[in-house]
Amino acid sequence: MIKQDTIVALATASGSGAIAIIRLSGDDAIAIVDAHFKSVTSSKSLIKQKTHTIHLGHIVDGKKEIDEVLVSVFKNPSSYTGEDVVEISCHGSSYIQQEIIQLFLRNGCRMANAGEFTLRAFLNGKLDLSQAEAVADLIASDNEASHQIAMQQMRGGFSSEIAKLRSELLNFASLIELELDFSEEDVEFADRSQFKSLVDRIILVLKRLIDSFAVGNVIKNGIPVAIVGEPNVGKSTLLNALLNEERAIVSDIAGTTRDAIEDEISIGGIGFRFIDTAGIRDTEDVVESIGIKKTFEKIEQSQVTIYLFDASVISNTVEKSESVKQELEKIKNKYPQKPLLIIANKIDTLNDIQLAALQNQIEGVQLLSAKTGFGVEQLTNSLLNLINTGALRNNETIVTNSRHYDALLKAFEEIQKVKYGLDTGLSGDLLAIDIRQALYHFGEITGEITNDDLLGNIFANFCIGK
Amino acid sequence: MIKQDTIVALATASGSGAIAIIRLSGDDAIAIVDAHFKSVTSSKSLIKQKTHTIHLGHIVDGKKEIDEVLVSVFKNPSSYTGEDVVEISCHGSSYIQQEIIQLFLRNGCRMANAGEFTLRAFLNGKLDLSQAEAVADLIASDNEASHQIAMQQMRGGFSSEIAKLRSELLNFASLIELELDFSEEDVEFADRSQFKSLVDRIILVLKRLIDSFAVGNVIKNGIPVAIVGEPNVGKSTLLNALLNEERAIVSDIAGTTRDAIEDEISIGGIGFRFIDTAGIRDTEDVVESIGIKKTFEKIEQSQVTIYLFDASVISNTVEKSESVKQELEKIKNKYPQKPLLIIANKIDTLNDIQLAALQNQIEGVQLLSAKTGFGVEQLTNSLLNLINTGALRNNETIVTNSRHYDALLKAFEEIQKVKYGLDTGLSGDLLAIDIRQALYHFGEITGEITNDDLLGNIFANFCIGK
Repeated sequence: MIKQDTIVALATASGSGAIAIIRLSGDDAIAIVDAHFKSVTSSKSLIKQKTHTIHLGHIVDGKKEIDEVLVSVFKNPSSYTGEDVVEISCHGSSYIQQEIIQLFLRNGCRMANAGEFTLRAFLNGKLDLSQAEAVADLIASDNEASHQIAMQQMRGGFSSEIAKLRSELLNFASLIELELDFSEEDVEFADRSQFKSLVDRIILVLKRLIDSFAVGNVIKNGIPVAIVGEPNVGKSTLLNALLNEERAIVSDIAGTTRDAIEDEISIGGIGFRFIDTAGIRDTEDVVESIGIKKTFEKIEQSQVTIYLFDASVISNTVEKSESVKQELEKIKNKYPQKPLLIIANKIDTLNDIQLAALQNQIEGVQLLSAKTGFGVEQLTNSLLNLINTGALRNNETIVTNSRHYDALLKAFEEIQKVKYGLDTGLSGDLLAIDIRQALYHFGEITGEITNDDLLGNIFANFCIGK
Repeated sequence: MIKQDTIVALATASGSGAIAIIRLSGDDAIAIVDAHFKSVTSSKSLIKQKTHTIHLGHIVDGKKEIDEVLVSVFKNPSSYTGEDVVEISCHGSSYIQQEIIQLFLRNGCRMANAGEFTLRAFLNGKLDLSQAEAVADLIASDNEASHQIAMQQMRGGFSSEIAKLRSELLNFASLIELELDFSEEDVEFADRSQFKSLVDRIILVLKRLIDSFAVGNVIKNGIPVAIVGEPNVGKSTLLNALLNEERAIVSDIAGTTRDAIEDEISIGGIGFRFIDTAGIRDTEDVVESIGIKKTFEKIEQSQVTIYLFDASVISNTVEKSESVKQELEKIKNKYPQKPLLIIANKIDTLNDIQLAALQNQIEGVQLLSAKTGFGVEQLTNSLLNLINTGALRNNETIVTNSRHYDALLKAFEEIQKVKYGLDTGLSGDLLAIDIRQALYHFGEITGEITNDDLLGNIFANFCIGK
């Protein structure tokens, strides 16, 4: 192992909190902290302390005491990075955080780059590349589904699936390459029919993984839902009603306030991004027609369309009800494949006869009162049913990372060449080349095959301190 | 000791970071975490682990894995609060923080109130009241001076000074009260001349502490400096020049970005708040005269006034130079006691003859070029010299807390009554009452004397998680 310089960074969120954690990693991490640490409880130097122990004392710069801190010592290889790691838990003022980091920068540390702690963990074999990527996903996860996928990937679920395919394929590749050594004797070490069935299995798995990317992408980025509806039909009341169902769970936890979610709402653990649009009724008005164009653009970008209208208005005038029907026709004609939910809001203002008339006039309408909450649960169920969350529930591997997706597509292409080669009785040496290519792309995912550029790209997206 | 319920809160700054710390304290803290923790490295339960040890594993909710975490165990009394404490270092996503806190809330914890961890530390005798208050000051400190004072107070510097006075006074109080028991025999256990000299000494110390509050207040809240100057004389360039002197130190530390300081600048470790004002030249204009009134108001609120003008303009026209002189006269007349720094900016545009003329015309002018940096250091020295930082440099106790200040004032009043009583030969029983009162106010500072309302007020100002 080459000598690793020691890096330092703030590991907790920036800003003021009760405490903050400053993390150091590298060959001199413990010695550097020890030189500026006065223990309260022990006369032993930190270097002599056991791994995974915590020590109360002061960080001092010469005679100046910077803070009373807890120092956690992790010795290589039993640390996050696999190197010697020290975590300093100090009081959470920005001033103190800065003073301590500066002290270490003046005394043998350098500032960590984005993701450098995790990069070192990868380089030291503590996790593979797809697990390292899952760390960033985990930190970015803001709903149950994306969190669950990141956790599964971090635990190595995805890697082990890829690694299994890779090792089986590698086994056959070796046999075929062995045949080449004995090519003059015309032997077949690799049983072609067994190999064919393996290739078929790999194709199936790859297809499933590739297909899962659509779901994975949706889960990671949230599902865009266009709400088409004129002003005052109750769009914001509806969003609040959807939001409240979730909020109720967390309302009693002071201090863990979520960021204002605005139009992104988590329903059943999946993020939905609601995009507000104007109506699309017929018009001669130029300004209006620009609005209509935009509405269509937003429907285009969405995966689901909710058409929301005011039930009370529609049951009073025939005209209005016709205009709703026309708008719905237009949307259906333009986007026949796109799921469309038709929601009549404010049904609390209607009597039973009016309700029956409404359901008669508009086919497939769902009744809702954002005010009373009636129909909100039915709507959330409809939304969830539209998304194929089967894979998620069955705990299957879901691909969320576009780099993995690309590698899987390439591997798929190569494997299909292998299959074609087998079917057409391609010679072993040519077959071996295609297999090697497929193996290469598998290796890219887990990081057995890598290069500095790739690593640079991946870890640049991490935050500093991770 | 009564059974303490277990409290939980996020201890690090809210928002997303690489890691976050969730802290639990109370009788069941370790058991509650243990019930939802699957260790990776040890089969022993957390309850059987030693204090100050760290354990890698997963936080689980039934079969659901919430996160891979490090759990730190602190056993009573060797913890911050003096109770059993567990700190969970999890991945820093808000979603994960929330999930873990919710899990513990559902399983025997309650959400901690603001400052409740430190309140418990106080109630369990881990720190006295003034030390507890210093914790909040330390977290809020944003410059070297306020940090240094808070550290000194947290280390008990202030408390021990008060405690020493209190114990000496208590000693005499006991002797005098003993006299009362033997009042018929007319004995004097308490040597009156020794007592007088003690009272004189206490008065001296109290005076010094009370006086230090002015400096302490300034250091804690920053020193307000009014900059009087018309537009375009270079106010913002000057602020940037002052700022750059400090910024240079931290510029190479990515990831530790300070919050935008705007007009608050730390000079020599002391915070200065610069308040921008318009000029104050004579005018008939109503709008202008409102501006002038505001300028005077801001000078009023400040401790220092900087009068900034454009040197290049003044050396061209006699008129302009007269107007500057008049404005200076006005300020000096209105605020004869307030320190005034007269700064001619943009002197890089002047030749030597013009410079000499300028210095001749305006008494006490300091030459400066915010652009080239000339004179900036002289200005910062002038600002620092205006503040009595002697006490700070001599490491003397400085009072920054208005609650302490109030208690010291009251103690001072009582001690003067005692002195008067001694001088006039007041009877022992009356003397004893005044001494008790003084002792009471000393006790208020360190928390020997306290009540729920007072504690409530103090700890409500803490953040949750501290």
